[in-house]
Amino acid sequence: MSTTSGRPRRATVHDVAVVAGVSRGTISRYVNGDPYVSASARHAIEAAIAEVGYVPNTAARHLVMQRTETVAFIVHEPHSLFIEDPNIGGILLGANAALSEADHQMAVLIIDTERDTERVAKYLSGGSVDGAIIVSARAYDPVARVVERLRLPAAFVGHPPGATSAAFVVIDNRGSAHAITERLIGTGRRRIGMIAAALDRDSGSERLAGFADALGDRYDDNLVERVPLYSYSAGRDGMNALLDRAPDIDGVFAASDAVAAGAMEALRAAGRRVPEDVGVVGFDDSAWARRTLPALSTVRQPAEGLGRQAATLVLEQLRGDITPREVLLESEIVWRESA
Amino acid sequence: MSTTSGRPRRATVHDVAVVAGVSRGTISRYVNGDPYVSASARHAIEAAIAEVGYVPNTAARHLVMQRTETVAFIVHEPHSLFIEDPNIGGILLGANAALSEADHQMAVLIIDTERDTERVAKYLSGGSVDGAIIVSARAYDPVARVVERLRLPAAFVGHPPGATSAAFVVIDNRGSAHAITERLIGTGRRRIGMIAAALDRDSGSERLAGFADALGDRYDDNLVERVPLYSYSAGRDGMNALLDRAPDIDGVFAASDAVAAGAMEALRAAGRRVPEDVGVVGFDDSAWARRTLPALSTVRQPAEGLGRQAATLVLEQLRGDITPREVLLESEIVWRESA
Repeated sequence: MSTTSGRPRRATVHDVAVVAGVSRGTISRYVNGDPYVSASARHAIEAAIAEVGYVPNTAARHLVMQRTETVAFIVHEPHSLFIEDPNIGGILLGANAALSEADHQMAVLIIDTERDTERVAKYLSGGSVDGAIIVSARAYDPVARVVERLRLPAAFVGHPPGATSAAFVVIDNRGSAHAITERLIGTGRRRIGMIAAALDRDSGSERLAGFADALGDRYDDNLVERVPLYSYSAGRDGMNALLDRAPDIDGVFAASDAVAAGAMEALRAAGRRVPEDVGVVGFDDSAWARRTLPALSTVRQPAEGLGRQAATLVLEQLRGDITPREVLLESEIVWRESA
Repeated sequence: MSTTSGRPRRATVHDVAVVAGVSRGTISRYVNGDPYVSASARHAIEAAIAEVGYVPNTAARHLVMQRTETVAFIVHEPHSLFIEDPNIGGILLGANAALSEADHQMAVLIIDTERDTERVAKYLSGGSVDGAIIVSARAYDPVARVVERLRLPAAFVGHPPGATSAAFVVIDNRGSAHAITERLIGTGRRRIGMIAAALDRDSGSERLAGFADALGDRYDDNLVERVPLYSYSAGRDGMNALLDRAPDIDGVFAASDAVAAGAMEALRAAGRRVPEDVGVVGFDDSAWARRTLPALSTVRQPAEGLGRQAATLVLEQLRGDITPREVLLESEIVWRESA
């Protein structure tokens, strides 16, 4: 076993073998918990471990325990969103709290490029974690497929893509979108549009469906602008497109608070007052909602609760408990000044 | 080796041994790369591995390689900050990109409570990672002590606390604070205050020192409000305290953009116009700076560059290269409308 030059190395199994005067095979049997290691060899190995300062190695322990007490938290988000979506922070801290209370380490893995996807899939296969929490998986996600193939104890935040047996925790996106659109209709608006985002995800397509449910016969697809991401700039661009197509628009349901903040900026630039000329509502109740002027009416997502519940689902599977396949958390409308 | 009831288990070394008709000790020698495994045993083991679907185990490989190809990214931030400070997202994505290009997995570990600190320290000791990037370490940080004790290849973002031999990457907080305060003085302000934050960290205390440098004899400690965190609410409270003590204040250097955004909200609530009545400048050029109205004049921190450079310092140490102890990245003033 060679050492890396230029930095001090940690003691290895080899060092222990030399000091104990036994073979590395014997050390391996010892760390693997093999009962057929003689008492004298065992004592020599234990003394040698103490002498050379061999750090009880997680890798060795894993061979015995098959447990790492680590749970991956996988965020599959493009660059800008990780920074712009404050919900992920809440989900992450909720999961961390629940795992921490159960003495499990959370390791956040970020998927930003195709290369990351492949490496994370390999990492999950390699036995470095006992389970995984997956946020924002999309259809045909290789990470979701790896979790399924390995039968890794897992929980998705949001409805997982494709046919999977994994557990998941969700809010009722469709029902919540329906409810806030109805409330917006109730303020007397007559030309209500939507900036629909992230339609490749369950949350995005369900929010659009809930909007259509609420409008019923009055639904006008010309008043729906589809944007790729739940982002501020997508909201600004989407609002500008709606204003071009329908200058008489007087209400907007933005698919997220960041989208709503961008839409409000576009309305301000176009000289439209919120809520007097155009009523705006969002979705999430993230930090964005409290920073807009006027403050945003929105749907509150229990971000920390989603993270905590996802962690609980994984911990239950690790204990061998039978877990529900789907957990639905309550969301609520928070009505402020923007509509 | 018992299995956990209620979920399918992965194939283990034991399964391979049964099918191959060899002892677990022989399997152990095989996975450890021991040359004294007979060719026939080797073939039997390889056939058995294929048959039972044994996943080549990272834990086993680690015993041979002593490398996990994983680098921890440790964020030591209280709850609200992880969500409110968009700089951390940039640092994180920069580090992830550099590690990904070198085919290393980044695992983000979040320290939110004392319990997290102890568990992360244990995790680092256990051989699960080859190195670590540490953001926002504070004086007497147990994680910094563990990194030092293990001589783990590491890089800090920001000046590490205490006496440590670890590498770090920084910007010139003091010089940048000096420069933006001078620029604010240049707009003709006569009563300039500061909302100083996070004085238990290097960045916080150096920004205050730079402010004092720029004002020289005109420095008035009565115009400095000290707040605990780089947060929006700390900025709002800090500005209110300054307005109480010095109603004639006409310029404010806020220690971060989030602090500046909170200060601007307090000024608006107090009926002071920005920049007409009070000029405000921040620090970071995070997403906050582009959301304030008017847009914030600030110091641009190269967040992604800091992360990328920290990852590079760790990768160099893993290759056995001699790395610089300190890397200084350039920051620049971005002058907008708030002062």
